[in-house]
Amino acid sequence: MRIARFSIDGNVSFGVVEGEAERPDSLVVHALAGHPFGPPQPTGEIHRLADVRLLTPMLPNKIVAVGRNYAAHAAELGNEVPEVPLTFFKPSTAVIGPTESIAYPPFSSDVHYEAELAVVIGRMCREVPAARVPEVVFGYTCANDVTARDVQQREGQWARAKGFDTSCPLGPWIETDLDPADLAVTCTVNGELRQAGRTSQMVRSVADLVVHISEAMTLLPGDVILTGTPAGVGPLHVGDEVAVSIEGIGTLTNKVIKRG
Amino acid sequence: MRIARFSIDGNVSFGVVEGEAERPDSLVVHALAGHPFGPPQPTGEIHRLADVRLLTPMLPNKIVAVGRNYAAHAAELGNEVPEVPLTFFKPSTAVIGPTESIAYPPFSSDVHYEAELAVVIGRMCREVPAARVPEVVFGYTCANDVTARDVQQREGQWARAKGFDTSCPLGPWIETDLDPADLAVTCTVNGELRQAGRTSQMVRSVADLVVHISEAMTLLPGDVILTGTPAGVGPLHVGDEVAVSIEGIGTLTNKVIKRG
Repeated sequence: MRIARFSIDGNVSFGVVEGEAERPDSLVVHALAGHPFGPPQPTGEIHRLADVRLLTPMLPNKIVAVGRNYAAHAAELGNEVPEVPLTFFKPSTAVIGPTESIAYPPFSSDVHYEAELAVVIGRMCREVPAARVPEVVFGYTCANDVTARDVQQREGQWARAKGFDTSCPLGPWIETDLDPADLAVTCTVNGELRQAGRTSQMVRSVADLVVHISEAMTLLPGDVILTGTPAGVGPLHVGDEVAVSIEGIGTLTNKVIKRG
Repeated sequence: MRIARFSIDGNVSFGVVEGEAERPDSLVVHALAGHPFGPPQPTGEIHRLADVRLLTPMLPNKIVAVGRNYAAHAAELGNEVPEVPLTFFKPSTAVIGPTESIAYPPFSSDVHYEAELAVVIGRMCREVPAARVPEVVFGYTCANDVTARDVQQREGQWARAKGFDTSCPLGPWIETDLDPADLAVTCTVNGELRQAGRTSQMVRSVADLVVHISEAMTLLPGDVILTGTPAGVGPLHVGDEVAVSIEGIGTLTNKVIKRG
């Protein structure tokens, strides 16, 4: 099931997207009452997807991200794969949806894209054993872990480099029926391929990451885990259009604009 | 004004604390309707402070913390004062109030206290100039930036070391009329003095930190900034009682228990 969040005529709802991804004209969204955790409650209202504005599919309370989880990406920045997963937070104020723009922050001159598989948590949980991870995962979406690389290299902790406003595009929707073991993850800038990896290259699997993070902290419904980026990161410029695609989910496209 | 958040008979409210801090029997709390941002709206309900349960005075959306902001503390851990403030996040799930306990996380064997002045934001803001910082600050409270030092030293980013459940005690209330320039910050463990600094020793002032953080990200009402800890950090053990006191605010006391 593909769960989207959308607005139409000023109303915001969750909805179930149906139709063929390859034929955009066939796509419709069935509005849901309330939140999408638990059995979906359709209101009966149906819209053509082209008529609604897609929003970030989730408003997470927290986003926990993982660095250097693809060996080739760690190497391209001159880093080793860490012995213990390297975890950091992005704040909820960084989240934007698939129709919003990345605003280039004025304190950086080297902002990079990082295409990533995002895990959306569906149940409040802590100390989740590996075997029970599927029970707490609601689904998967595309993420761009937008990073001010120059700031990241200057500052020892990454709150500003990876936490500035608009640095966490999520979308276009959450796919709830998906095996995350071996999915193609790609990133294009202005249509040119820049990153092409597979989730099977992740040093730690989705299950490993949920176990590791939930050992320390409670995860809430809607919380998001970013699973790291494959090799090929590089700069974005004002005017660029960056697209993250993940096999079985879809494509998250954002423009890059000057901060207003 | 001292703004607390409390529960009585299962109801949770904000309130204004009045009376003499030195005479606990004199303390009462005047309940407020709704949230405390903007003009306070007393309901007319008054309780003796001893009859209510104090909760964390704020449920922040995000907590932005600053490392190595007192030179003597940076030195005691063998670090230099960073050229640019070192900023990291603690998640909302880490917050506890003054009557809750710090649960010792099973993945660490070296959990430390860190007494800190906490700044509570009162207005949504971004790119705040230094002269306007007082307009966006709601008030100040005591914080303990509880840290799994062994995990911090093992993992390059600090999400688990400083983000585990119960690692962010806040309280006992928010003092809205306070000059943060030169306040005594102390920490005791089981009544023994362990930290004694003054906010005048901070490398970057409250105003500098609000400017620096808000340059990157939007701050929301209730968001909290932790301003770093003075020298004297050290271990906590199950059974300890740790108390953070800040001149002009009060004392935040928490027990340390085994995680249940």
